[in-house]
Amino acid sequence: MTQDPDGGIAVIFVSQRNDTDAAGYDAAAAAMDALAATQPGYRGIDSARDTAGIGITVSYWADEASAIAWRNHPDHVAIREQGRARWYDWYRVTVATTTRGYAWPPA
Amino acid sequence: MTQDPDGGIAVIFVSQRNDTDAAGYDAAAAAMDALAATQPGYRGIDSARDTAGIGITVSYWADEASAIAWRNHPDHVAIREQGRARWYDWYRVTVATTTRGYAWPPA
Repeated sequence: MTQDPDGGIAVIFVSQRNDTDAAGYDAAAAAMDALAATQPGYRGIDSARDTAGIGITVSYWADEASAIAWRNHPDHVAIREQGRARWYDWYRVTVATTTRGYAWPPA
Repeated sequence: MTQDPDGGIAVIFVSQRNDTDAAGYDAAAAAMDALAATQPGYRGIDSARDTAGIGITVSYWADEASAIAWRNHPDHVAIREQGRARWYDWYRVTVATTTRGYAWPPA
């Protein structure tokens, strides 16, 4: 993940998976990760899902325009509809403007 | 998690656990979650760690002052030192100002 923490956008997606269609979900998630990485303004993604099905994905974007373009990408819209119909019990999205960041060990 | 997405602070903590001292780590993580929840300006926390040891924790704060106060809390500082010494291969922190949010299904 290669975000510049200054003035970019972080889209925090927190979700609860159900037990439905794990293979379909995994394929869709991989396809969306790959497609996101080709979009203008993409800076990276972090993702983790625990064994209880709670997952957090943070995608990082250069600016608001690129974050919104990804939200509105037709393939992404279609997958979200599948997600609501099949894969998720619930999700929450928080959009935030990054102000600073640091790493350990230092780069 | 009960964040108000408008103008609060999200602290995104992404980390790679090693295999050291799982019990000590789990106890410290639970203690920090509980202590954070008692701090002024605390709005909630989301956390997930996958089976490969990648974890994401997002804590939500009312404002910059409360986020910084938590960062500087002596118990939190001490635990971070333990984390670098014992539990983490690496971590990254991104601080961001929340601008909007939505949930499905709608509340």
